[in-house]
Amino acid sequence: MSEETLPAREPIGTLQGLLAALSDPVRLEMVRRLAGTPQPQACSLLYDRINKSTASHHFKILREAGLTERVMIGGQAHQRLRADDVERAFPGVLSSILGSLPADVGSSAAH
Amino acid sequence: MSEETLPAREPIGTLQGLLAALSDPVRLEMVRRLAGTPQPQACSLLYDRINKSTASHHFKILREAGLTERVMIGGQAHQRLRADDVERAFPGVLSSILGSLPADVGSSAAH
Repeated sequence: MSEETLPAREPIGTLQGLLAALSDPVRLEMVRRLAGTPQPQACSLLYDRINKSTASHHFKILREAGLTERVMIGGQAHQRLRADDVERAFPGVLSSILGSLPADVGSSAAH
Repeated sequence: MSEETLPAREPIGTLQGLLAALSDPVRLEMVRRLAGTPQPQACSLLYDRINKSTASHHFKILREAGLTERVMIGGQAHQRLRADDVERAFPGVLSSILGSLPADVGSSAAH
């Protein structure tokens, strides 16, 4: 199965950009789901009840903030959380945010 | 010197609200300045190059997010960072964000 990262990896953005990216409940839920595993996840597994074009918009903001990268696996788009890069740039920020999330952020993000 | 907290303390808001409040460079700089001391700070010491009404708008967002409270000291409005309350609600989030700030966020926020 071929794996290819497309497009070129974004540099990690600013702290403000990261906070803005994470201040949206849909994007925070995407990141929460990605954080559960080091493997890239199929895009469609990362959201509920929004359409594909809205999801693409959110994926773009996450990618431009340096939080995620897009990976093609077997011809299908996946997202991967750049947890190590973010940790290096902003120590403790992402992990403490994820640690503070209520367990039900997923369902609340869907409304 | 009299000290009075006005209005009644806001409950700590949501994690998203906190991240949104901190994703603005002017507000992040206000919080950075407040974090330097446990004492309430006079409002006018917390920003540069924005007018008072813009500053009031930013103070309101910080207060509603549960990050700050307004304290009157000797008839003058001050702001106090609710660092302990925020730490209790979202452990490590505020401290890691403050720890990740570049030293020059103040000057960059002014532009």
